[in-house]
Amino acid sequence: MKDVAARAGVGLKTVSRVVNGEPGVTPDTERRVQEAIETLGFRRNDSARVLRKGRTATVGLVLEDLADPFYGPLNRAVEEVARAHGALLINGSSAEDPERERELALALCARRVDGLIVIPAGDDHRYLEPEIRAGVATVFVDRPAGRIEADVVLSDNFGGARDGVAHLIAAGHRRIGFIGDHPRIHTATERLRGYRAAMAASGLPVDESWVTLGPTPPAPVAVAARRMLSGPEPVTALFAGNNRVTVTVVRVLAAEPRPVALVGFDDFELADLLRPGVSVVAQDAAALGRVATDRLFQRLAGADLPPARIELPTRLVPRGSGELPPAA
Amino acid sequence: MKDVAARAGVGLKTVSRVVNGEPGVTPDTERRVQEAIETLGFRRNDSARVLRKGRTATVGLVLEDLADPFYGPLNRAVEEVARAHGALLINGSSAEDPERERELALALCARRVDGLIVIPAGDDHRYLEPEIRAGVATVFVDRPAGRIEADVVLSDNFGGARDGVAHLIAAGHRRIGFIGDHPRIHTATERLRGYRAAMAASGLPVDESWVTLGPTPPAPVAVAARRMLSGPEPVTALFAGNNRVTVTVVRVLAAEPRPVALVGFDDFELADLLRPGVSVVAQDAAALGRVATDRLFQRLAGADLPPARIELPTRLVPRGSGELPPAA
Repeated sequence: MKDVAARAGVGLKTVSRVVNGEPGVTPDTERRVQEAIETLGFRRNDSARVLRKGRTATVGLVLEDLADPFYGPLNRAVEEVARAHGALLINGSSAEDPERERELALALCARRVDGLIVIPAGDDHRYLEPEIRAGVATVFVDRPAGRIEADVVLSDNFGGARDGVAHLIAAGHRRIGFIGDHPRIHTATERLRGYRAAMAASGLPVDESWVTLGPTPPAPVAVAARRMLSGPEPVTALFAGNNRVTVTVVRVLAAEPRPVALVGFDDFELADLLRPGVSVVAQDAAALGRVATDRLFQRLAGADLPPARIELPTRLVPRGSGELPPAA
Repeated sequence: MKDVAARAGVGLKTVSRVVNGEPGVTPDTERRVQEAIETLGFRRNDSARVLRKGRTATVGLVLEDLADPFYGPLNRAVEEVARAHGALLINGSSAEDPERERELALALCARRVDGLIVIPAGDDHRYLEPEIRAGVATVFVDRPAGRIEADVVLSDNFGGARDGVAHLIAAGHRRIGFIGDHPRIHTATERLRGYRAAMAASGLPVDESWVTLGPTPPAPVAVAARRMLSGPEPVTALFAGNNRVTVTVVRVLAAEPRPVALVGFDDFELADLLRPGVSVVAQDAAALGRVATDRLFQRLAGADLPPARIELPTRLVPRGSGELPPAA
């Protein structure tokens, strides 16, 4: 910066103002400084500044799958709050792989993010303890951290699923299938727990062939759905454990001769335009992101808060598919 | 690291192996080193390492809108290629704001990303010239860079739109509306150009009331669509300039009494399950991401390539909505 100042014939403070876009510089001076900057090839080196200052005004977000539309609103909400606090958001995807989650989270910390928002893929987050002790505020979203105490902001997975299944029972269904995500995933087991609670509350037995937990790309989900819909006593309704499962089940049901009721966990675009409209248990992904990031900045501002579990309610949205009665 | 080595009673090289997860360390030694690391609170400081080494093995990706499902596959493709080269991907969103794009791109460069992939929101990228000269490989995607020469990987927007509109003309339509994005956006003007070319090739005049370019949130798009569908000589078909427009037009048409043909640019999930299925001009977003990132790593490997425009073909996917004849 001293070279730029010398070349432009101005003081260091003036160069700083121009570089940071601050007011108080005449257009002529600004032009001279910009020319000097260009000529000398001066580039902001935040790495060096980081070492001097300690804060990079950056938040890291570890998501699960950059291509899942569920995370879009969450991602954007985190960015908006970060931006309002003058911080940049950098994010990456764990692709549901605990090792990749760890790699990414540690790499973000190594770049000195001020805070970290993590949608966990794994169930052991002790690897983050040194970072948290060193001052990286960390908030978990959608699923709790494993083996450490930390803030988590998540939806009422249990209650939401329970209400969705109760809705199918109220429409007359007794044989209801549940297709959910890998049992290692907290949301999957919580939603299954809600399914079982709703069935038990109505005194209905659960045939274990009605329950499938596992990875949710289209192929295995379609296989599970077709299996439950076949045989002498098929299910008359399905509860889909997340938006990816719901979309695959919609496709399977489009090819089914008889009507099968469906409630899915998580809303998705165009759910209302399908025929029948798809009834869902909706989370507020944007609210999850917003609440988590607000919490993060509270911690960064110095608030001494014990780790908390912040649970947001879900909302049942009946659109047609969840109200179909059992086929004769 | 010297402190850790001393505490654990091992050499510096051993500490380095443990920190980087390399083989050649007995479990007992590894445990001693890990304990020393924890006790001393040693944390990888990539910022300092960056200053020493020069390469951070990171790629920065500047997207337009983290919540737009179109970018999901692109984002994931970039990450996969980066990962295959041992690099981390960090990304952020410009929210279609040129100033925010610049802010984000410069911040990523300040953190010494090795390369940058940019989906431009603005039309002047001279702000990146110092970075590019300093060695940050940069590839633009979806739209060319403004005022500088740089690689761009994009779809055949002109040809794809032309083919989509020609498809509607072949179904018998003469009064066809076009609703596209803000005219500042390259893809919008290219697709409009394709629309005009298709109309001209069939000797059809274009009534300028049939053409709307502007921001594409649902409200203004719905207003434009309804306007074109009203009056004594409404359009009988619509060409939607991107997936956001298509989804809004689908909703508007669901409330229309008479059938209106529709072709949209960009495919979207569930387009085939709507009734009628939505005919689209599909881009391969994953291919765009992959080709751009391959190009980036070619440059990082030292290939001395002149800036190139790499255009990927689109694909017309007829599903029903684009083949409806003009309503009587």
